[in-house]
Amino acid sequence: MKISEGVEWAAHACALLAAVPEGGALSAGAIAAFNDLPKAYMAKHLQALAKAGVVVSVRGAQGGYRLARPPAEISLWDVRRAIEGPGPDFHCANIRLKGPCVAPKPSSGPCAIAHAFWEAERAYQAALGSMTIADVVVQAAREQDAEGLSRIAAWLRAAL
Amino acid sequence: MKISEGVEWAAHACALLAAVPEGGALSAGAIAAFNDLPKAYMAKHLQALAKAGVVVSVRGAQGGYRLARPPAEISLWDVRRAIEGPGPDFHCANIRLKGPCVAPKPSSGPCAIAHAFWEAERAYQAALGSMTIADVVVQAAREQDAEGLSRIAAWLRAAL
Repeated sequence: MKISEGVEWAAHACALLAAVPEGGALSAGAIAAFNDLPKAYMAKHLQALAKAGVVVSVRGAQGGYRLARPPAEISLWDVRRAIEGPGPDFHCANIRLKGPCVAPKPSSGPCAIAHAFWEAERAYQAALGSMTIADVVVQAAREQDAEGLSRIAAWLRAAL
Repeated sequence: MKISEGVEWAAHACALLAAVPEGGALSAGAIAAFNDLPKAYMAKHLQALAKAGVVVSVRGAQGGYRLARPPAEISLWDVRRAIEGPGPDFHCANIRLKGPCVAPKPSSGPCAIAHAFWEAERAYQAALGSMTIADVVVQAAREQDAEGLSRIAAWLRAAL
């Protein structure tokens, strides 16, 4: 099982949008260009983020996208859910209720296997939910020297 | 993102194999029939379980499959990994190392986003890893009354 590359793209897009000043917006083209990605696919992922309420779409000549709320209130789980859907990843088809040994009146509902998978998914969600876009930005900024940060700032000024 | 239905099938197959007496084996056809599933697909999943060392294939007229080790030593993570592959689910393509703002000598290696996803995957694995086929069997048995248990036992005797 693989997570779509769109999750990585969307997470980086949100980290970039965290640097957009209040009232500003970045176009899908600019967001894609920042990581040298194809605009059409990035636009699709941004629409998914917008649909999930992670970013908002701003119309007009200076339009584009911005975060829907502060980066400290957007988790990587929010991003993953926006791109991959809310889940659950494990689907219980209740196969134990089929076959020659099923009781005349079987107890219905998901079994221990399904519950264990959903419990694991909750642990996954909790872990991703505790990592915010603000955390990502802080760690990304630590990787940059002063020159890198001013290069990004200059790029952003031109792109806004 | 969805987990393949094969994971549910394989988990139930392992729970059924836990009831096979020592030295015995169940054919792919019997395992599929127990939950009214198509034999060809079940055979494919059993081969994946065998390749991962969760079950062993027994040749001969009374051949088939049996668990490779005690059910208390097989976790749902073992089953999931056998069917879906070892992962990781999140693939880091290092897109942050592309684009107009990348430093001349960027720090390589996965970023905070990838590490957060892999940390969440470890939490998921730990949760699934703590649920064994023995646990599943105990809970499944609790759902059965005496009649149900003897129906399964009779079916098993005929199938072995």
